[in-house]
Amino acid sequence: MKVNINGETKDMRSVWMEETKIMFIDQRQLPLKLEFFLAQALEDVAYAIKDMVVRGAPAIGAAAAYGMAQASLLEMDLNEAASQLKATRPTAQDLFTAVDYMLGEISKGAKLKNSAEEYVNSILNKCQKIGEHGEKLIKNENKILTHCNAGALATVDFGTALSPIRLAHQNGKKIFVFVDETRPRLQGARLTAWELQNEGIPHALIADNAAGHFMQKGEINLVIVGADRITNNGDFANKIGTYEKAVLAHENNIPFYVAAPITTFDFSLENGKDIPIEERGQEEVLIIGQRNIAPDQTRARNPAFDVTPKKYVTGYITEKGIITAEDISSLRN
Amino acid sequence: MKVNINGETKDMRSVWMEETKIMFIDQRQLPLKLEFFLAQALEDVAYAIKDMVVRGAPAIGAAAAYGMAQASLLEMDLNEAASQLKATRPTAQDLFTAVDYMLGEISKGAKLKNSAEEYVNSILNKCQKIGEHGEKLIKNENKILTHCNAGALATVDFGTALSPIRLAHQNGKKIFVFVDETRPRLQGARLTAWELQNEGIPHALIADNAAGHFMQKGEINLVIVGADRITNNGDFANKIGTYEKAVLAHENNIPFYVAAPITTFDFSLENGKDIPIEERGQEEVLIIGQRNIAPDQTRARNPAFDVTPKKYVTGYITEKGIITAEDISSLRN
Repeated sequence: MKVNINGETKDMRSVWMEETKIMFIDQRQLPLKLEFFLAQALEDVAYAIKDMVVRGAPAIGAAAAYGMAQASLLEMDLNEAASQLKATRPTAQDLFTAVDYMLGEISKGAKLKNSAEEYVNSILNKCQKIGEHGEKLIKNENKILTHCNAGALATVDFGTALSPIRLAHQNGKKIFVFVDETRPRLQGARLTAWELQNEGIPHALIADNAAGHFMQKGEINLVIVGADRITNNGDFANKIGTYEKAVLAHENNIPFYVAAPITTFDFSLENGKDIPIEERGQEEVLIIGQRNIAPDQTRARNPAFDVTPKKYVTGYITEKGIITAEDISSLRN
Repeated sequence: MKVNINGETKDMRSVWMEETKIMFIDQRQLPLKLEFFLAQALEDVAYAIKDMVVRGAPAIGAAAAYGMAQASLLEMDLNEAASQLKATRPTAQDLFTAVDYMLGEISKGAKLKNSAEEYVNSILNKCQKIGEHGEKLIKNENKILTHCNAGALATVDFGTALSPIRLAHQNGKKIFVFVDETRPRLQGARLTAWELQNEGIPHALIADNAAGHFMQKGEINLVIVGADRITNNGDFANKIGTYEKAVLAHENNIPFYVAAPITTFDFSLENGKDIPIEERGQEEVLIIGQRNIAPDQTRARNPAFDVTPKKYVTGYITEKGIITAEDISSLRN
């Protein structure tokens, strides 16, 4: 992804490995500061995932793959490392896919550092293909809504939902992106807006409350979001608020697409009711940047994800093309 | 309303008049500080409305009525005062209703201070009746969602949407309130949560994004919101995000009620398309408590209200009882 540092544009990934160290763009600090988080040991990697130094299903998968490679280089117990990594966050499918892939590589006697790089390259490759397939959905002058951050930060590079948007812009299509701020953690305001600004893609930040209004007014032509887990029937989990936008898009006859690599599909789950939903600390709702927004004794509820039933999804943009819920079973094989 | 000050509970209104001075609870400072704003002249009243020292359609109406009374006591040109007050905010119907009522009182030769107090008493009376009618909709163990603040702060006392909730709690019904934080200005987090805490009503703050999730999970039984303007056919304007919650309630078969006095109905407008929607400054989205949440060059769109079509409304809780969209034309007479 393009990153502007003091007027200079660099090409950068959101997570990478240098010798035994794993480097992250610290997503908690953006957009105010571009800082890097260095993980020297498994506890650091687990902390980075849990505390959301790194977030986004594919980037979490990459972090876990690198974490397993690091554990191997540091000669740790790899089953123990796998358990620790899997216990960090419950919803994103890619975390489990990545760790299981690395366990498989061990049984093959592979060098885990190479296996992790292959895993990450395969994410990048998939994201680029998602971009190519999804770009065809975007017409000149389209105004596109996205929720949370399914960009390069979330996927090492390129993004899932943002990959078609990046490519449409590169191809000279005149587009405009409405960015849901995405409370409580403001990933839209902090991360998606930052990526779009770095790429020079015209956009406006909106309160999550305003998306329905702009849909109703005919100002949004297309919705593209990412996914944390997609089940067999097409139901999917994504950042809290995705379900709201999907229902509103449906009500306003606006195409609603989910962009995700096939590693995000969990073929072991029949439907969305079975996806575990992480409820995070209430301070994420009660405090914005050290400032309490509610009275002292007020408590909060903070589900981090919601489940959108398949009936609201126009299609799934995968590296193998754009598919419908009915096509998912054939992916399984 | 109950206000807890240093462990002591006082009964207070959100706006009142003392001699020629108009006093406001400064709603911009809550819940961190309980401060009062003193309006000594018309410019102060206009500022208080524009800058949202006072907000909520009925309370804006009360402020305008007091403003006209003050202008009369200070021997100002009353037509000029009326124009200045009407120019403060475009969406809330009560502002225009209140100023026109006061102009009518002038032509009758009334003492405007008395007329303003009568206007305010009539708001209080209506809010209490709205409470009595609406309370019947609330069952024991109900979990109720509300958006923004349609409480005592918004209506001088009691509230519109919060009036039935207050009464159900006083009557010993065990209820729970989900409070949408209501970005960008956080009236739910700052004001509704503050009122509920003062009254001892169990509640939880949620990100606006999470309301749909809790509806889908069956955790919300009833939605009650206020209104800024209701048109002849039943479409209504209210705080941005109301439309989203209405569509989601409809989709999940949850009753959705609008609580408002009949002064909020604008019989001159056939439907919601004709309601002017105020777009406020983008800094309300970009900055939370002095802190910029987005990159430097990112711009924002900030519609303050949206319009909910009548088809999503189960009923309107008015001082004359609970009515449907079909009944509105009969109110006109």
